[in-house]
Amino acid sequence: DLAHSDSLAGSGEEDDVDATTAKSIYMVSDGTGWTAEHSVNVALGQFEHCLVDRGCAVNTHLFSGIDDVEQLVEIVKQAAKEGALLVYTLADPSMAEASKSACKLWSVPSIDVLGPITEAIASHLSVSPSGLPRGAPGRNSLTEEYFRRIEAIEFTIKQDDGALPDNLNKADIVLVGVSRTGKTPLSIYLAQMGYKVANVPIVMGIEVPRTLFQVGPGKIFGLTINPVVLQTIRKARAKSLGFHGEVKSNYSEMDYIREELEYVGKIFAQNPSWPVIEVTGKAIEETAAVVLRLYHDRKQKHCMPRISKRY
Amino acid sequence: DLAHSDSLAGSGEEDDVDATTAKSIYMVSDGTGWTAEHSVNVALGQFEHCLVDRGCAVNTHLFSGIDDVEQLVEIVKQAAKEGALLVYTLADPSMAEASKSACKLWSVPSIDVLGPITEAIASHLSVSPSGLPRGAPGRNSLTEEYFRRIEAIEFTIKQDDGALPDNLNKADIVLVGVSRTGKTPLSIYLAQMGYKVANVPIVMGIEVPRTLFQVGPGKIFGLTINPVVLQTIRKARAKSLGFHGEVKSNYSEMDYIREELEYVGKIFAQNPSWPVIEVTGKAIEETAAVVLRLYHDRKQKHCMPRISKRY
Ligand SMILES: Nc1ncnc2c1ncn2[C@@H]1O[C@H](COP(=O)(O)O)[C@@H](O)[C@H]1O
Ligand SMILES: Nc1ncnc2c1ncn2[C@@H]1O[C@H](COP(=O)(O)O)[C@@H](O)[C@H]1O
Ligand SMILES: [Mg+2]
Ligand SMILES: [Mg+2]
Repeated sequence: DLAHSDSLAGSGEEDDVDATTAKSIYMVSDGTGWTAEHSVNVALGQFEHCLVDRGCAVNTHLFSGIDDVEQLVEIVKQAAKEGALLVYTLADPSMAEASKSACKLWSVPSIDVLGPITEAIASHLSVSPSGLPRGAPGRNSLTEEYFRRIEAIEFTIKQDDGALPDNLNKADIVLVGVSRTGKTPLSIYLAQMGYKVANVPIVMGIEVPRTLFQVGPGKIFGLTINPVVLQTIRKARAKSLGFHGEVKSNYSEMDYIREELEYVGKIFAQNPSWPVIEVTGKAIEETAAVVLRLYHDRKQKHCMPRISKRY
Repeated sequence: DLAHSDSLAGSGEEDDVDATTAKSIYMVSDGTGWTAEHSVNVALGQFEHCLVDRGCAVNTHLFSGIDDVEQLVEIVKQAAKEGALLVYTLADPSMAEASKSACKLWSVPSIDVLGPITEAIASHLSVSPSGLPRGAPGRNSLTEEYFRRIEAIEFTIKQDDGALPDNLNKADIVLVGVSRTGKTPLSIYLAQMGYKVANVPIVMGIEVPRTLFQVGPGKIFGLTINPVVLQTIRKARAKSLGFHGEVKSNYSEMDYIREELEYVGKIFAQNPSWPVIEVTGKAIEETAAVVLRLYHDRKQKHCMPRISKRY
């Protein structure tokens, strides 16, 4: 989340003045590498205080689909040259072992992200892990979950921004809020997790679709935000749209924003069964966590909110 | 990926016959819990052989936003009662320590997902971790990355399914393929990572938008798929649409599918600079990994394909 990726900008880090002082982290996976990358990302969250002012600088390098020892050793050698830390997820125990011993040989500090949790689960289940990486042949990728996820994504795209209000009752989750409270990215994030999401923008002077009040209980969530933060986001939005007339002229004026938030606040007050979530300062995945905690909570009678799944 | 979640179906696992034999995994985080859940998910991939035939069964329970010791101890006690494994990510070292000792006290097997990688990075950078969880106050969530990601998602939604062909040149990545090769979910997955993606469906008898041939080099990716698998997906699609006339009658006929794949194959052959990715048997995130590996590869002159970022 704190990442300033140069990957889109396309500037090679080699040309950069920082390159000499920045520390490298190599990430190696026999699969997609997303697990290693995600783990490094959240762990780097613990070093935000020194990353923001570039008191420390980090370059990460992701190597995915690494399934033979030769490639692996090549990467470890390169990591040694760069003085990098190596983070790996390798399902095949002989590959994990090879990584460990190559790192020892070339004095590369390393950490196994998959091994410890796999071992913990293995002894918990009293079952040996397969040792087969993600891409191993013979797997059936056309699972029920695959189809459900795709359906959820397609549904969510079609419902975006108040389109097809007649379909609101088909959604698992309905998000309600004024423009720029993050309804669209939040909808998409939840859709990826398999939930059909609809979002309904609240705009002063435009009537709320009546079908919203026919949606089943526990599905609707209101989003609210601090007006000053909302103004910042709307100004950025208006700028990126280049004033093409797509946005109202008073869209990012503070008086208008306050009035609009009051208007939506009244609607929320009239519908006390809709939980209202404060999104100020929250990343999309954080708001998603709050939504899903509440969504699953109403279905169960546990003392502590939890999200349960069966495998 | 192998998950059969009951969370949407809404059936409480308590009512289930499996509940007595299934092993529980508790996941606890002071943040969203997505890291713990993701780690458990990929690790469970190593037990697919016994999960598919329910030779072993697993129930997971996610507790997110756990930021005080009392809640934590409550969860550990509950885990002890259920004989669960506890997987945790707790940024505050005193919380992590409390988790560890409570687990020891109540004989709950446990594993710390965040601690080891944070320590490895700490000693690599010679910087102490902040110990502050994700939701700690004072963070600025309105980063450049936040805005870029939202812009990418909104762009991608608008371009979906060949809409706005005049905007193709504004995309970072353009996906080309016949219907049901997973262009939409793949586009959305990449959009979440900050890439503006457009996708162009190839349909026999409908001309390919000419703007596609004006897109810069290295941006276009062809998707291809095994015809038998495609037929399975299309049949499922036709079924879920309920034959509402939205799909052509020959849409999932094998002759038509073969002809269409031949047609797109010719287009790919005429454009040898477009990498063609076989999506058969691949999960969306796996195809995404291949696309991004190729996408970043053309920008650099390394012996081994890598994706580099700067923090
Ligand atoms: N469904 C799965 N089956 C087996 N192994 C998996 C599965 N998903 C992920 N893995 C393994 O988990 C690690 C992380 O995966 P990835 O995030 O794709 O790099 C890799 O070692 C993968 O091989
Ligand atoms: N940006 C961040 N800053 C600080 N800690 C973080 C950040 N992102 C994630 N974490 C921590 O990493 C762990 C996993 O996060 P989560 O996936 O939200 O459960 C939790 O302990 C979070 O508190
Ligand atoms: Mg948000
Ligand atoms: Mg796919």
